[in-house]
Amino acid sequence: MDFREAVHDDLPAIVALLGDDVLGKDREAAAVDEVYERAFAAVTEDPRNELVVADDGGEIVAALQVTYIPGLGRHGAERALVESVRVRADRRGQGLGAELMTWVVTRAGERGCALVQLTTDKRRADARRFYERLGFVASHEGMKRDL
Amino acid sequence: MDFREAVHDDLPAIVALLGDDVLGKDREAAAVDEVYERAFAAVTEDPRNELVVADDGGEIVAALQVTYIPGLGRHGAERALVESVRVRADRRGQGLGAELMTWVVTRAGERGCALVQLTTDKRRADARRFYERLGFVASHEGMKRDL
Repeated sequence: MDFREAVHDDLPAIVALLGDDVLGKDREAAAVDEVYERAFAAVTEDPRNELVVADDGGEIVAALQVTYIPGLGRHGAERALVESVRVRADRRGQGLGAELMTWVVTRAGERGCALVQLTTDKRRADARRFYERLGFVASHEGMKRDL
Repeated sequence: MDFREAVHDDLPAIVALLGDDVLGKDREAAAVDEVYERAFAAVTEDPRNELVVADDGGEIVAALQVTYIPGLGRHGAERALVESVRVRADRRGQGLGAELMTWVVTRAGERGCALVQLTTDKRRADARRFYERLGFVASHEGMKRDL
């Protein structure tokens, strides 16, 4: 299993992962289109954004996005924000998500980030426990407003 | 009252706002130092990060940070993340925070963001209600792991 930054060839597999999700299925398009292409370019060309994939011998079986956020708070701490964590349905419950998250957290620490943060939908009952096992604390309300 | 992006002269006032806070007082330094200077440069030089201040005739009475995050999720939506919202103690409870947040949300919409998100510490009992009045929904757990 190889954890690495995504390349353009990975885009169809990542879009499939985003759609293959109980919450994602209603808000994602079925295939790569111009909108996803632009978003992929925006993420991968930004030095503070990364798409990370788990590559199992050429198959993309998990993906997530990391954003490194500079800031004044906590005495000028950089933080890493993790978004859109997806593991392929047939690979769930086998420790892959934990391995991938651990890799991301370690990398953020090496970069000098003071914290890693994420929000998880309260409807994903297992997700909170998953992140708690990885040392995350549900100390905050994650609030969203659609525009 | 003028809402605008921060300039370097505003830095001491912003650092004072960060420290003048029940949670911030233990994790901020007393005055501008090299670390804050570097963080200020990192935020203001990044096209996807902004420090916004409320300027009342030359006095900085509120501040926050916005990060615009590109992403594949929600069909390639850009989202705006708001962090480190602070209103000066003597100006709280007068609608200034709501005015500032409304300005930020409107701006994110004009930019084309599909959502605005933030996390608020569960110990800030009033904050959740404040954001709910502004249309935010506490749909997510905000999880953090210190490094």
